[in-house]
Amino acid sequence: MMKRIDFWFSIGSTYTYLTVMRLRGIEQQFGVRFNWRPFSVRALMLEMNNVPFKGKPAKEKYMWRDLQRRAARYQLPARFPVSYPLENFDRANRVAIIGEQEGWCEDYVRAAYALWIQEGVPAGDEDNLVQSLEVAGQDAERVMVLANADDNREAYEEATNEARSLGIFGAPSFIVDGDELFWGDDRLEDAIDFAKGNKD
Amino acid sequence: MMKRIDFWFSIGSTYTYLTVMRLRGIEQQFGVRFNWRPFSVRALMLEMNNVPFKGKPAKEKYMWRDLQRRAARYQLPARFPVSYPLENFDRANRVAIIGEQEGWCEDYVRAAYALWIQEGVPAGDEDNLVQSLEVAGQDAERVMVLANADDNREAYEEATNEARSLGIFGAPSFIVDGDELFWGDDRLEDAIDFAKGNKD
Repeated sequence: MMKRIDFWFSIGSTYTYLTVMRLRGIEQQFGVRFNWRPFSVRALMLEMNNVPFKGKPAKEKYMWRDLQRRAARYQLPARFPVSYPLENFDRANRVAIIGEQEGWCEDYVRAAYALWIQEGVPAGDEDNLVQSLEVAGQDAERVMVLANADDNREAYEEATNEARSLGIFGAPSFIVDGDELFWGDDRLEDAIDFAKGNKD
Repeated sequence: MMKRIDFWFSIGSTYTYLTVMRLRGIEQQFGVRFNWRPFSVRALMLEMNNVPFKGKPAKEKYMWRDLQRRAARYQLPARFPVSYPLENFDRANRVAIIGEQEGWCEDYVRAAYALWIQEGVPAGDEDNLVQSLEVAGQDAERVMVLANADDNREAYEEATNEARSLGIFGAPSFIVDGDELFWGDDRLEDAIDFAKGNKD
């Protein structure tokens, strides 16, 4: 049976760009499948006062350089730095929740990240939403009504609660076999090894 | 000419155990050499209010699991969790400064980490110091006098200032070609690729 890995992400995490663009190749190469699970990593980080970059200029400067090098390693186009943090973080992710329910999540998220990281159009902003929903074959007006509805806001919060209960504290995160957590694009290969049975 | 990489470390960083135990093999495999540079990562992290684990139980729980998996991946013995943070962090590193000057730094640091991570004897505590200095062929009493002297405390602070000026904010860190920074045991391979000329 094809092994499935839960991919927990928030649009707005910079390193998640690397993962989002790598997953299709990984699925083909390793014969695994990913469940795309949007949630609010921002909510969880605020809860635990986890402030990775604000007020830490040396660390933020390093992040951009590291991202540029890592993107080059994966042969991904990128123009770092980009606008960060995202102003419309929650809106970008509430749309992803609708995509998850309707089956076009991956196409939307890939397009949203490509526009943000390659062309500088911030994810969650109207320009980005309209264009990335078009790539995903969706009518932006219809989707935005659904994304802004109360039951979708609740679904987003429930997903975040589920992430918290799994011990997730950052993004991207991968859950293998229901409870084995891997954090960071740089642990994706560890997650795949674990899923394939090369366990410690 | 043999390529040299500066290895900036603080005894007390848990992930640095992986690096400390891997460097000999890496040197043989890739034909590079490392300059061992002790400094106080704690001082730099306090300055920028960088608190990676305190008050973040989900993140700390994950760290121990990730470390255990990573140690297994590298076939390194380990008994996580260990006592953390280290009570005698600065003392452990001031001794390393003497080792750097006298040429036995690597032997001491390897022994100190092995005792801490494999046997649970905290680095910087007297038991650990006496045993790890013996492994390094040094008289503990003589070394401790030097390590506690004012000029050595100054040398430790100067090393920390140098690390800060290089943009270092965490440990382990690697500096290639004088100013290209890589942070984390999981960026060691990126640093080597960069040193070998596979640059982006």
